[in-house]
Amino acid sequence: MKRQRPPIIGVMGGGDVDETTAESAYELGTLIARNGWVLLNGGRNAGVMQASAKGAAAAGGLTIGILPDDHKGRASEFIRIPILTGMGHARNIINILSSDVVVACAGGAGTISEIAIAVKQSKPLILLNFMINDMVGENVAKGRVFSVRTPAQAIAKIRTILNIPG
Amino acid sequence: MKRQRPPIIGVMGGGDVDETTAESAYELGTLIARNGWVLLNGGRNAGVMQASAKGAAAAGGLTIGILPDDHKGRASEFIRIPILTGMGHARNIINILSSDVVVACAGGAGTISEIAIAVKQSKPLILLNFMINDMVGENVAKGRVFSVRTPAQAIAKIRTILNIPG
Amino acid sequence: MKRQRPPIIGVMGGGDVDETTAESAYELGTLIARNGWVLLNGGRNAGVMQASAKGAAAAGGLTIGILPDDHKGRASEFIRIPILTGMGHARNIINILSSDVVVACAGGAGTISEIAIAVKQSKPLILLNFMINDMVGENVAKGRVFSVRTPAQAIAKIRTILNIPG
Amino acid sequence: MKRQRPPIIGVMGGGDVDETTAESAYELGTLIARNGWVLLNGGRNAGVMQASAKGAAAAGGLTIGILPDDHKGRASEFIRIPILTGMGHARNIINILSSDVVVACAGGAGTISEIAIAVKQSKPLILLNFMINDMVGENVAKGRVFSVRTPAQAIAKIRTILNIPG
Repeated sequence: MKRQRPPIIGVMGGGDVDETTAESAYELGTLIARNGWVLLNGGRNAGVMQASAKGAAAAGGLTIGILPDDHKGRASEFIRIPILTGMGHARNIINILSSDVVVACAGGAGTISEIAIAVKQSKPLILLNFMINDMVGENVAKGRVFSVRTPAQAIAKIRTILNIPG
Repeated sequence: MKRQRPPIIGVMGGGDVDETTAESAYELGTLIARNGWVLLNGGRNAGVMQASAKGAAAAGGLTIGILPDDHKGRASEFIRIPILTGMGHARNIINILSSDVVVACAGGAGTISEIAIAVKQSKPLILLNFMINDMVGENVAKGRVFSVRTPAQAIAKIRTILNIPG
Repeated sequence: MKRQRPPIIGVMGGGDVDETTAESAYELGTLIARNGWVLLNGGRNAGVMQASAKGAAAAGGLTIGILPDDHKGRASEFIRIPILTGMGHARNIINILSSDVVVACAGGAGTISEIAIAVKQSKPLILLNFMINDMVGENVAKGRVFSVRTPAQAIAKIRTILNIPG
Repeated sequence: MKRQRPPIIGVMGGGDVDETTAESAYELGTLIARNGWVLLNGGRNAGVMQASAKGAAAAGGLTIGILPDDHKGRASEFIRIPILTGMGHARNIINILSSDVVVACAGGAGTISEIAIAVKQSKPLILLNFMINDMVGENVAKGRVFSVRTPAQAIAKIRTILNIPG
C-alpha cells in the first residue's frame, strides 16, 4: 500500500529550440522513463517540453506538466498529468521546487530564470549542453551544479546525486 | 505511445475532520482509484487529504498532492507525486484548476475557498455530506453543483459528468 | 524619514453589482481616504473595485489594486498603484494577506473565496450588507467577524479594530 | 479626482551586498523619489531592498515592497506599503510585472531570476554596475537592456525610456 516515491526529474529548456536540442531532450526523456523516474516539465506542446515528454511517454514513463495556463489548450499530448496553475511565469518556481534533480537543456530567459531559482534553492542542477557563466561558476566549484554533454552523462550524474549504485 | 489522459478527480476537505468524514474520504479515494482515475488533493498528512490519499493508494491508484509548502515535510506518505508550490493558500487555486471534477468533503474556511473558486470557474462540483448554502443554491439549479450523501453516489455522479456509460 | 505606516483597508466585492452596492462602496472608499488610510482592492475597472477606488480617489486617498492580469488593460483609472500579478484568482490571497482589515461588500463566489481566506487567516473581517452564513457564524461569536449595514458603521468598526480613539 | 499614475521604478538586487552596492542603491532610491516616481522592490529589511527604500523614504518618496512572506516581520521599516504575498520566490514575477522600468543592482541568483523574467517580458531593464553576460548581450543590441555605472546615469536612462524631456 505504502510505496516509496519515484524520483522526480525536472527537465527545463526553451519552447523554441533547434533540432539537436530537441533530439537531446527526447533522448533524455526516454532515459528518465527507463530508469523508472518521473519526468516533470513546463507542460507545453513546444520545444524541450514537448520533446522530453514525447521521449518519456514513448518509454512508458509518467509525465507531469506544470502549465502556466488555466486550461489544457497548450498542454503537450505526451503529458499525462497536466497541472494547471493559471499563474504564468510563477509556475517556473513550482517546476524547480517539485523536482528532486533539475536538468537544464538549452533555452532562453525563461530557462535561465529556472536555473537561477534552482541555484537559489541549492537544488541539484545539471546543465546539458547549455553553457552559461553567470552565477553558475561558483556553484560548480561547490559541487552543486554540473555540466554535461550528452543525455547519458546527465543520467549518470542523476544516479550519482540520487545515490543509486551503478 | 500517446495515451488518453486519465480523469483527475480533486478531493477537497478539511485538515482536521471527524472520524466519519475521514472514513468517507478513504472510501472515496478507494473508489476513485478503482475507476482508474487520478486522485488530486492538497497533499498534507492530515484530515481528508491523508484519508483520501490512503484510500486511493490502498487500491493502487495514482495520487497527486499540491502542497502549500516548499518542502516535503508535511506531505502525506500516500501521496506518490508531491507538487511543491511554496505558495501557501494560493495552491488552492491550482487544486481546482487541475481537477476535471471536484468533490468537496466536509471542511472549514479553506475548503469553502476551494468551493468558491470551483463555482467561479464553473468547474463540476460535488458536495459530499457538506451542507453549505451561500453561492451554491443558484448553481445547483443550473446543474453545475451536486449534493450527495455517500462516496458511491459521488462516483455515480462523476461517471455521469464524465459521460462514462454505467 | 521613517514614518509610521498607514493602515491598509482591503475592500472586497463583486465585479458586477447593483447600484446600491456600488454607491455604498463609493462612500466606503471616500471615508477610508478621509481617515488617512490606504484603500486596497482587486484593482479592476468594474463593480465594487471601480466604485471604491473612485470614492477614495475623489477624497485624495492612495489606492492600491492587486490585479489578476499581467498588464494594465483592465485596471481602474482610479487605482494609483496597480500591482500586476499575472496570477489570476491567486491574487485574491494577496488581497487578504496585505490588508490590515478586510471589508467585504456584496459579491459572488470570488468575494466568498476572499472571505474564506480572511477567516482562515484570522484577519479582522467586516461584512457590509453581505449576509453569508457558512463558516462565518462561529467567527462572529469569537468576535473576529462583524456584520454592519452602512459604510459609516464599517468605519466605526475599523477604528475600534485599529484601536483609534473615537 | 482622476490623476495620472506616477511611474513605478522597480529596484532589484541582492539581500546581502557590499557597502558600495548599498550606497549606490541608497542614492538611486533618493533620485527616484526626487523625480516623483514610486519605488518598488522586494520589501525586505536587507541589502539593496533596505538601502533603496531608505534612500527613497529619506527623499519623501512612496515605497512599495512585494514581500515573499505572509507577515510583516521582515519588511523594511522604510517600506510604506508592504504587499504580503505568502508566495516565496514567486513574488519575483510580481516585482517585474508591476514595474514600468526595472533597475538591477548587483545581486545573486535571485536577482538574476528577476533579470531573466524582465528579459522574457521585454520590460525595459537597466543594469547598474552589474555585469552579466548570459541572455543580455542580444537584448543590449536590441536596445532593451542598458548598462550604466552610476545612479545618475540610471536616472537619465529612465527619463529617456519614459520619454521625459531633459
